[in-house]
Amino acid sequence: MTSATRPLLLSNVRLPTGEAVSVSIANGHIEALGPNLTPPPGAATEDGGGALLLPGFVEGHTHLDKTHWGRAWYRNEVGPNLVDRIENERAWRKTSAHDAGVQSLALARAFVAAGTTRLRTHVDIDTDAGLRYLEGVLETRHALRDVLDMQIVAFPQSGMLVRPGTQEWLERALAAGADVLGALDPALIDGDPVASLDATFAQAVRHGKPIDIHLHEPGEVGAFTLKLLLDRVEATGMQGRVVVSHAFCLGALPQPEPLLERLARLDVALLTSAPPSRPVPPLKRCRELGVTIFGGNDGIRDTWTPYGTPDMLERAMLIGMRYDLRRDDELAMAFDCVSTAAARGCGFADYGLHAGARADLVLVEAETVAHAVVARPPRKLVVAGGRIVARDGALVGALISAT
Amino acid sequence: MTSATRPLLLSNVRLPTGEAVSVSIANGHIEALGPNLTPPPGAATEDGGGALLLPGFVEGHTHLDKTHWGRAWYRNEVGPNLVDRIENERAWRKTSAHDAGVQSLALARAFVAAGTTRLRTHVDIDTDAGLRYLEGVLETRHALRDVLDMQIVAFPQSGMLVRPGTQEWLERALAAGADVLGALDPALIDGDPVASLDATFAQAVRHGKPIDIHLHEPGEVGAFTLKLLLDRVEATGMQGRVVVSHAFCLGALPQPEPLLERLARLDVALLTSAPPSRPVPPLKRCRELGVTIFGGNDGIRDTWTPYGTPDMLERAMLIGMRYDLRRDDELAMAFDCVSTAAARGCGFADYGLHAGARADLVLVEAETVAHAVVARPPRKLVVAGGRIVARDGALVGALISAT
Repeated sequence: MTSATRPLLLSNVRLPTGEAVSVSIANGHIEALGPNLTPPPGAATEDGGGALLLPGFVEGHTHLDKTHWGRAWYRNEVGPNLVDRIENERAWRKTSAHDAGVQSLALARAFVAAGTTRLRTHVDIDTDAGLRYLEGVLETRHALRDVLDMQIVAFPQSGMLVRPGTQEWLERALAAGADVLGALDPALIDGDPVASLDATFAQAVRHGKPIDIHLHEPGEVGAFTLKLLLDRVEATGMQGRVVVSHAFCLGALPQPEPLLERLARLDVALLTSAPPSRPVPPLKRCRELGVTIFGGNDGIRDTWTPYGTPDMLERAMLIGMRYDLRRDDELAMAFDCVSTAAARGCGFADYGLHAGARADLVLVEAETVAHAVVARPPRKLVVAGGRIVARDGALVGALISAT
Repeated sequence: MTSATRPLLLSNVRLPTGEAVSVSIANGHIEALGPNLTPPPGAATEDGGGALLLPGFVEGHTHLDKTHWGRAWYRNEVGPNLVDRIENERAWRKTSAHDAGVQSLALARAFVAAGTTRLRTHVDIDTDAGLRYLEGVLETRHALRDVLDMQIVAFPQSGMLVRPGTQEWLERALAAGADVLGALDPALIDGDPVASLDATFAQAVRHGKPIDIHLHEPGEVGAFTLKLLLDRVEATGMQGRVVVSHAFCLGALPQPEPLLERLARLDVALLTSAPPSRPVPPLKRCRELGVTIFGGNDGIRDTWTPYGTPDMLERAMLIGMRYDLRRDDELAMAFDCVSTAAARGCGFADYGLHAGARADLVLVEAETVAHAVVARPPRKLVVAGGRIVARDGALVGALISAT
């Protein structure tokens, strides 16, 4: 957040609890939240019309650099395996005119318009492209710096040990502005889980960066890798700074409890896109045991997948469906996955609907949080960093012209 | 279809194959479809603007009578078991002011606005309500008779044998206008699979009606019931007239092939809502073996589930996600589940994009069928039985006032 914002009084809104309140905003933050507030000096005023007030949404895992969002339809004729998708994409990126800067900006803007104000994106770093995609996404982050709090993960999509030279590129990516060190399937892609994890943790410690590892490895092999990973979290003191994305293995083990308990103890968070065709970590049990589990789209309309939208209410709905969450209190958990739990898992600061938090707010016409999740109504108003950035689903003001 | 329609020439549209065509429509049916057509005498003309032409969508399984669509949010605090949901709903129906006629009309109209022109709805028949819900849905069917081809299944939601008197109500429901005889978990709800199935088949044969059975029974018990059912299809000569809805068991058996082959041989179709939290019949293998498998929402925003929308493109997307269909040719299968395969499975006549078919058409701004499924764009135009019934997602003309 760089430039100054005018104070704002957002009146006549409903909290998820049902309470009617106003929100007073100054210096980009929530100053007060409650009934009968007086506007801050010089404040603009906005009548919320009794709409439901939600915190700005958090996208916990996407790939802004590889999307086709808003471009011509990509005809997907790719083979079914992980390696097919990796190879197809790398080949396609070499030959297509795809521009990670232009495309990440298009998708990030769509995220903001739909109420996302914090986002963690993975960006491919490999020996073909070097930092090219990272540079594009860094431009997008800069262009939207006033409204979208973006974390960038330097992600070795094509493998690390298996593709010599990649570690050096990751090194440069961290120096160039990536916030988080990524990693990928230490056993099944890199072929050497011990060496791969050792290298990742050493690099993260050297740079003082958190880790986000994509662990697709299934069942027992995934559990084996996860145990090695947890050993290293403990050995390096990286409690609270590691996210395991996907972790399909935790949905397939007969006895995941010991691993879940250790995840909780070491404060290692889990990210799920809640894929309907794969095993997924047990959401409710994770929450009961104190494991932070949060949600994200993963890729959105790219060479990997045609699915996904920049609407985190839709992702919450898909999480709800995947875990068969039907009760209102359960749907609130699904929303938590794309809001509070995601902010905690990614380490986004000053998050939430309380005084002192950054003023990231969304208004929707919905009776309750559960209603908002299943109906995914248009975003009536989006406030990011204290600025009104979207109305009725469309970006407004400076954000339209500035980018 | 009762009242006369004015001829229509719909020009400048694209077939799913990419071919640019016009459609000439008279007497509610497609007269011709191809390039450079001359308008039928006295025809209205409509420029499709190059949009993608799809056949009207088919909802293969929903519950119009129990939805809250468009009403106040229903706070779901129901227990997790099938029986909890059945009991909760029956109790709620007795005490709430819910009106199956009003609600089924609201949802059916939303289906038409979103491009659905054929629909199979299950309607609860039980000893508490008798034919009350059926009467409401029959009114809706009558109100929309010119635009929505609706099949009604008389469905013993609270069980049949287990609730004496239900069979007699089913008898009356069939006499009153229900098209299909429903059934529910002959072992796990009715408690006597042989007697329950025998009763259902006898009643269907007596009335000359097809059967649609909800088979939630899991794994081996579901397989056992399914075998009993197939025996009775064979014994009663009901090939081509039976749908098995859900059939979760087929997604959980180590060896489903013999059952699948028998389903194909006996022309018994499968319906799936593609729930992400349950095992589902193997879609691709069913199609390879010649088993008709098609899609539906199941309940939409009712006391059972908060989920579902009257948008069959969204259901196709959810089917695609459940079966991990990513390639364009695979997404075309997902669309087939809510169009051609569903028409075949339910036995809707004169369906499709060809001369002689009923003129049920949808235009969307999408490059391909796969694109339409994942993007779910607003319905630019909906034609039902030769009439323009919706534009840009909203009902138009007589349909707004008539109901």
